[in-house]
Amino acid sequence: MVKTGTIKLSARGDADVQDITPQLHQELDKSGLKDGIATVFCASATSAVTTLEFESGCVDDLRRLFDEIVAPDREYAHNARWGDGNGHSHVRAALLGPSLTIPFSGGTFTLGTWQQVIYVDFDTRARQRELVVQMMGE
Amino acid sequence: MVKTGTIKLSARGDADVQDITPQLHQELDKSGLKDGIATVFCASATSAVTTLEFESGCVDDLRRLFDEIVAPDREYAHNARWGDGNGHSHVRAALLGPSLTIPFSGGTFTLGTWQQVIYVDFDTRARQRELVVQMMGE
Amino acid sequence: MVKTGTIKLSARGDADVQDITPQLHQELDKSGLKDGIATVFCASATSAVTTLEFESGCVDDLRRLFDEIVAPDREYAHNARWGDGNGHSHVRAALLGPSLTIPFSGGTFTLGTWQQVIYVDFDTRARQRELVVQMMGE
Repeated sequence: MVKTGTIKLSARGDADVQDITPQLHQELDKSGLKDGIATVFCASATSAVTTLEFESGCVDDLRRLFDEIVAPDREYAHNARWGDGNGHSHVRAALLGPSLTIPFSGGTFTLGTWQQVIYVDFDTRARQRELVVQMMGE
Repeated sequence: MVKTGTIKLSARGDADVQDITPQLHQELDKSGLKDGIATVFCASATSAVTTLEFESGCVDDLRRLFDEIVAPDREYAHNARWGDGNGHSHVRAALLGPSLTIPFSGGTFTLGTWQQVIYVDFDTRARQRELVVQMMGE
Repeated sequence: MVKTGTIKLSARGDADVQDITPQLHQELDKSGLKDGIATVFCASATSAVTTLEFESGCVDDLRRLFDEIVAPDREYAHNARWGDGNGHSHVRAALLGPSLTIPFSGGTFTLGTWQQVIYVDFDTRARQRELVVQMMGE
């Protein structure tokens, strides 16, 4: 059985990190599925998903990594070509990845105690976003 | 239902970036599936998949990131041990990852308007490659 | 059909890299499934999975990358806030990612000849770990 859910978000951009675990549990509850996998997918080239212990220290540390290895304040070929300012957003999103697949068992996700699913919006402006949650199982 | 597709590619190597979205749509059409997920998988330790706005600026910017954080022109333990020259290819592929899972709904992938699925060949020479596209759904 | 397996590991931490391909094949054999996908998931915020040619050179090269871009011997907001010493472990695990989805076909994984599935434990101490292997297919 396939069940499709969505998560709607207001994102501030600039590596805005949000915990989407509660919304994922809501979608799983609505699906009625007990065992299977859920794929969370960003239908965008400037955002990404992964897991993290969602506390401000880890969030700051993760954001610093991207500031260091994909700094915003330098030249990007994307910006030069299109007059955009979000070249770094594209590279960051491609590196972290738009897709995360999480097992669930007995109606709950098999996440660790200190592990949350996070959405990261790397774009340079605030946006309304909609994530796809594709659940498959029985 | 499980349907297995393949995508055949001629890759130049050295972080050759190719848009494989059209081939994915072809495989999905052939499968007859309407709702589910597709896993694109690189059966290789020197290539990877992710999404990107596929235009030459973003491609150049992504390639620069790998040149900076996993530079080709330095020593690698893999090269020293095996006399190979593709130590950086292995590290880059492991970091970006060989697998991408994408939902589809109503017979089409839930990709964003400016978001393409890209294959990146990090090896140091031209190769014929074959990607696995495992589709599951109904 | 959904089949849930587990892989139990003794991990040393500090970017301990282990080849889990044999255990994955065992779990697939036990499931009786022939065609589908397996999602390997780390129920932890300080460990990750990807693929690599599992030989000591590639392992050393991958570990060097993390030492360089997410160095352990600097300040982390996570450490400052909680008195922990594993701030770098969290950032590394979020970047590499806790989830890997691998197709299987005819009862075997579609891995390349030189490609193994690796588990990386980034935590700072030895731990007993348990990975989830969620298999779906027919």
